[in-house]
Amino acid sequence: MNKTISDILSWYKSENPGTIKNLYRMLASGRLGGTGKMVILPVDQGFEHGPARSFAPNPEGYDPVYHAALAVEADLNAHAAPLGSMEVVAPEFAGQIPLILKANNHDVLDKSTDPVPAFTASVEDAVRLGCTAIGFTIYPGSIHFKQMYEEVGEMILEAKREGLVAVVWSYPRGSNISKAGETAVDIIAYSAQIAAQLGAHIIKVKPPTDHIELEEAKKVYDKYRIPINTLAERVRHIVQSAFAGKRIVIFSGGAAKGKEEVFEEIRQLNAGGAFGSIIGRNSFQRPKPEALKFLDEILGIYEGK
Amino acid sequence: MNKTISDILSWYKSENPGTIKNLYRMLASGRLGGTGKMVILPVDQGFEHGPARSFAPNPEGYDPVYHAALAVEADLNAHAAPLGSMEVVAPEFAGQIPLILKANNHDVLDKSTDPVPAFTASVEDAVRLGCTAIGFTIYPGSIHFKQMYEEVGEMILEAKREGLVAVVWSYPRGSNISKAGETAVDIIAYSAQIAAQLGAHIIKVKPPTDHIELEEAKKVYDKYRIPINTLAERVRHIVQSAFAGKRIVIFSGGAAKGKEEVFEEIRQLNAGGAFGSIIGRNSFQRPKPEALKFLDEILGIYEGK
Amino acid sequence: MNKTISDILSWYKSENPGTIKNLYRMLASGRLGGTGKMVILPVDQGFEHGPARSFAPNPEGYDPVYHAALAVEADLNAHAAPLGSMEVVAPEFAGQIPLILKANNHDVLDKSTDPVPAFTASVEDAVRLGCTAIGFTIYPGSIHFKQMYEEVGEMILEAKREGLVAVVWSYPRGSNISKAGETAVDIIAYSAQIAAQLGAHIIKVKPPTDHIELEEAKKVYDKYRIPINTLAERVRHIVQSAFAGKRIVIFSGGAAKGKEEVFEEIRQLNAGGAFGSIIGRNSFQRPKPEALKFLDEILGIYEGK
Amino acid sequence: MNKTISDILSWYKSENPGTIKNLYRMLASGRLGGTGKMVILPVDQGFEHGPARSFAPNPEGYDPVYHAALAVEADLNAHAAPLGSMEVVAPEFAGQIPLILKANNHDVLDKSTDPVPAFTASVEDAVRLGCTAIGFTIYPGSIHFKQMYEEVGEMILEAKREGLVAVVWSYPRGSNISKAGETAVDIIAYSAQIAAQLGAHIIKVKPPTDHIELEEAKKVYDKYRIPINTLAERVRHIVQSAFAGKRIVIFSGGAAKGKEEVFEEIRQLNAGGAFGSIIGRNSFQRPKPEALKFLDEILGIYEGK
Amino acid sequence: MNKTISDILSWYKSENPGTIKNLYRMLASGRLGGTGKMVILPVDQGFEHGPARSFAPNPEGYDPVYHAALAVEADLNAHAAPLGSMEVVAPEFAGQIPLILKANNHDVLDKSTDPVPAFTASVEDAVRLGCTAIGFTIYPGSIHFKQMYEEVGEMILEAKREGLVAVVWSYPRGSNISKAGETAVDIIAYSAQIAAQLGAHIIKVKPPTDHIELEEAKKVYDKYRIPINTLAERVRHIVQSAFAGKRIVIFSGGAAKGKEEVFEEIRQLNAGGAFGSIIGRNSFQRPKPEALKFLDEILGIYEGK
Repeated sequence: MNKTISDILSWYKSENPGTIKNLYRMLASGRLGGTGKMVILPVDQGFEHGPARSFAPNPEGYDPVYHAALAVEADLNAHAAPLGSMEVVAPEFAGQIPLILKANNHDVLDKSTDPVPAFTASVEDAVRLGCTAIGFTIYPGSIHFKQMYEEVGEMILEAKREGLVAVVWSYPRGSNISKAGETAVDIIAYSAQIAAQLGAHIIKVKPPTDHIELEEAKKVYDKYRIPINTLAERVRHIVQSAFAGKRIVIFSGGAAKGKEEVFEEIRQLNAGGAFGSIIGRNSFQRPKPEALKFLDEILGIYEGK
Repeated sequence: MNKTISDILSWYKSENPGTIKNLYRMLASGRLGGTGKMVILPVDQGFEHGPARSFAPNPEGYDPVYHAALAVEADLNAHAAPLGSMEVVAPEFAGQIPLILKANNHDVLDKSTDPVPAFTASVEDAVRLGCTAIGFTIYPGSIHFKQMYEEVGEMILEAKREGLVAVVWSYPRGSNISKAGETAVDIIAYSAQIAAQLGAHIIKVKPPTDHIELEEAKKVYDKYRIPINTLAERVRHIVQSAFAGKRIVIFSGGAAKGKEEVFEEIRQLNAGGAFGSIIGRNSFQRPKPEALKFLDEILGIYEGK
Repeated sequence: MNKTISDILSWYKSENPGTIKNLYRMLASGRLGGTGKMVILPVDQGFEHGPARSFAPNPEGYDPVYHAALAVEADLNAHAAPLGSMEVVAPEFAGQIPLILKANNHDVLDKSTDPVPAFTASVEDAVRLGCTAIGFTIYPGSIHFKQMYEEVGEMILEAKREGLVAVVWSYPRGSNISKAGETAVDIIAYSAQIAAQLGAHIIKVKPPTDHIELEEAKKVYDKYRIPINTLAERVRHIVQSAFAGKRIVIFSGGAAKGKEEVFEEIRQLNAGGAFGSIIGRNSFQRPKPEALKFLDEILGIYEGK
Repeated sequence: MNKTISDILSWYKSENPGTIKNLYRMLASGRLGGTGKMVILPVDQGFEHGPARSFAPNPEGYDPVYHAALAVEADLNAHAAPLGSMEVVAPEFAGQIPLILKANNHDVLDKSTDPVPAFTASVEDAVRLGCTAIGFTIYPGSIHFKQMYEEVGEMILEAKREGLVAVVWSYPRGSNISKAGETAVDIIAYSAQIAAQLGAHIIKVKPPTDHIELEEAKKVYDKYRIPINTLAERVRHIVQSAFAGKRIVIFSGGAAKGKEEVFEEIRQLNAGGAFGSIIGRNSFQRPKPEALKFLDEILGIYEGK
Repeated sequence: MNKTISDILSWYKSENPGTIKNLYRMLASGRLGGTGKMVILPVDQGFEHGPARSFAPNPEGYDPVYHAALAVEADLNAHAAPLGSMEVVAPEFAGQIPLILKANNHDVLDKSTDPVPAFTASVEDAVRLGCTAIGFTIYPGSIHFKQMYEEVGEMILEAKREGLVAVVWSYPRGSNISKAGETAVDIIAYSAQIAAQLGAHIIKVKPPTDHIELEEAKKVYDKYRIPINTLAERVRHIVQSAFAGKRIVIFSGGAAKGKEEVFEEIRQLNAGGAFGSIIGRNSFQRPKPEALKFLDEILGIYEGK
């Protein structure tokens, strides 16, 4: 087995060979296969933000097949989507690229400060649809943390029984933190730690800013001079916060922005030791040829080119 | 197999042949059989609005048999009703016309801004009664979205195991949206997307107005000049929002109005690519001969006459 | 998706996407990936014939890891083994090559004319070990056919729920047939049909002789002049007997023999439209470099070289 | 069996031999094995306080393996950690040192006066990971006492069925008590009693101050001249409050402070009849050689040196 | 972790950390702890042969406590016994020495040529009694092989879920083999292979004679000149037959004989690479001081003294 992959798998020895196999498939698939890096195309925005906001910029995206095909053509590691989309794409794509069933979702009609995502799919769905992984969102900082951690924790255990990989989108949000706190370096580090402790195999967080949200944390960052000036430094700290780098931590790109900005961000992520990126709107909202070129550039960065 | 039907069925390849068969029966039944269009007679108003409000205009309607017989006589694709009605009609009609068991219902005694429908029947009921499909209402925009999506999601999975078709009435409602928002084009599009993501095979929504409820959505409709001036244009957008037309989306008629208004509305629905209509009060509250003539006209529109 | 693979998968539309995915993986893996042909390394002889008879010719074979590594190095489509061997190899190889858990086995201590294999593993084992498929032996011609068909049938159904591929070794044997009947062309054809009817996705049979076992069958073969003179002709008949070629039928090589004999046999199998070979002793009982060369030649035949 | 251990085990005769065995393992392990004393290394601060605050002082601690190795090297009785950390360390350390799965946790993002910890692991997790015990926090003094006591009580019962030891961190907190009350001698005594009544086998409390929180309690402490002047006296009272010393009560050290202070505190704990200490930050936040020396000194105190 | 132990544990990577922990405990316990060797005291003869035949030679043995205490005093790796005995000894000894619940048993009242042991205990019993392992007898060569392999296979899977070690006593017996065949080298090798394939972690067989039972096997032993002249050579072959030494194979002593004979036999076992011995009657039927001296000598042999 490829040394890089086998080193990564050695961090997950508690899992049965079924889960190890699926983690292997994600690490071995696509152009980054074998590098220990991952680029994933997630498309849950239809549910999370509504269809027009998500797909009007590139109307081909109304069709779930477009996204799975884009992920395959761009030679990514995996594609993530909610139940209905997965039902459309799984019969054709389940063997071609690892699929991640996004099992809870939240819609923007709910404007609560402290939202709780609804489960829209189950472990049984992931099994019948041939998915490699199942994914969940948690919102650290929400007053509903107990309910969310418990519901997701139980699903993760069930997923492990079935040999699935568990992916956690750990997105700080809620009345326990400020708006700036949602991307504060201490909070993102904390969110990575919480997801890791809940048993996640792969953790997705946002790129952190140099803001520090918690007073008590600030003292520590100052006293121990934890380097957080550059994004690369902050990413290094986040990865360290997920068991000293023994959990796969990948980063989202957030709202669409200029390509050069994205590439520079990803150079920093890579420099900081990120395991990869999960890039949704920034890719699927561009016309396909442009999206492919855009993703090609990103894969190149992670290949160290 | 009829090409139109087999094209539609190709969008549902995740399902087992049991579900495919039942979807086929709905698409192949009645006068519209084979056209890819559907007209369904739903009668849950006895529960939803009370018997007198529903049936006094045409007292024959107090008897559930009246409705099933009307649907058969009008040569529609299917008939939907709650448990008790279904228990009355299934022994005679289950073989003659596809039956949809409406499995959750809400009564007007509850005047909550954020209602949650009660499950009044189960998948087991649908099976024992020989139903072809099972139907559920969800209210996107309700603060109880999590409970509703999860309950309905679990029932849909169970229905699929049993080879039933899952129909979702996706009716925006609740304190997260305004009254106008209940039929706003962005919200109806969003509701169709949500139902599709929950795994619905057939989605029923209301005809959308040109109101746009969400600020963030408005920007996108404007920027990308999504055509929403005519009802046909809006319908086209709704259908697109349910997986680029890969889910069957049908439209309700809403409160009774003049016949001509209804026919014009249905011409627009058809022009916009709607898969059909679900017409309750507007048909069963008329005397039978009139209702039959009324439905005959509607079927004619969908036949492209 | 590769056209050859998607044509094959189109024969299995009853299955959920989980099973389709795993069938895809088997058809897409290894050097024959995408050709619609399969060569599989099965190693259950330790259990079936005892360890010395199986592994003394090439003692490296006492270690289950040897076989999985051989299958990977030879770039085959899959590797099959019983539970204990699978427990040894799955943690390292489950992601690298599709694994088939051989779930029932028989030992030669039992010399019954009508043996019944014992279940030595379960569907749960296949899931926790990350297997792609689960395999079973049946003995058409045994007086215990009812018990065997029923037990295997139940396991196949359970396997399909979990998205596994079901492989059936259909080996005529028992007091209902003669010794010559075990490889008679009518009986092998019959065994392929029975396995297909039990719900198998992949069927393994022995290359048939031109003997015809059953009197009634003989009349038909004669009357309709079914061509069975060459092995290629007989193979074509066997494949036809499994739903006109709509089930994957592969052929075993049987006891070790001269290499040239094997190659000639496989040329005939390929000419007759066999989907591939399952080659155990003939490969793993040779020293590794020789085995690799031997398998390379066989893969070449199926590649049409 | 060692007399001291068998005396202690005699207090737990209700439990099945599985639980007795695991309690034995905790009492027999490490340098204090057989003395009836315990020193445990708990590391849940990554979840409870965030990673930087916990591990920046000694960055090796970002890796869960560091802590398990430290506990083994220091020859302690057990190591406690949340699910994710346990998944990292269990495959290597489960046999070497008793592991306690910390099954509920709370993060400092939640600043409620009356927090409720979230369950982040289950009894099934403890079993599959080879843990010896499972641990829970309760907050006596919280308005949510009912929910917490009931949830933890159910898990304790389930743990006992599986032969696990149940450890309860009984930490007074919430709007029913004052800040000073969190360590008041009457409240700590009360918390020990409550944990014992919930079925805990091992109870962890904070060292009590001489403050008395409750008016009614104060009268009694005065009237009966319960000695609470020295920490040793107060510890004696706490131990007495947990069934006259028939439950293992151990004490936490709280926030890091000077070494000499800690040693003096532990001398008092030992003098008062404490069964041991649970020492987290004070050990793992020091460099390893210093931590080992620090723990060596503490073990020496409990050995009566 | 001790290198010898971690090498052995690396062969069992499919198992969860619970099972790994218990295997570790067996390999780390007693005087042979850490050597990779095991001596186990099994006492199921009261059930298997009747009490007087078993215990009259040393009447202290009527009391189950005697045996557990002997195993502890002799510093062995583990003690095995049926349910009732275990219920007597577990409360005191479960923590002191790994216990193996012998879960199926056969009594001599049944004189069938083809006996089937009865299950006298369950996995739940092993859990509640704090056992480290659960043990089963199978009789390869029996006409009831199917029933036995299936029953034991299911219990092994259940044991693994609970983190227990599975020990299989693989004792050839039944009308498919001759009396001499019960200890024939080919049959013992075969029995070790079968137990390994059923998922056993530890396999117990009898020391093989140089008799070869099966005609087909004999040809192979001759052709490949498998060395089987000395017991050491035969043992090496048996160990090889259990996955090239990747499963722990231990040997019973059989009926009581002279001490020197036993020691010589164990020297041969050790020379042949056996992982240890399981010694019942030969130890517990001697007076305790003699038994201890006897076991001390045996442990010395495995220590290489």
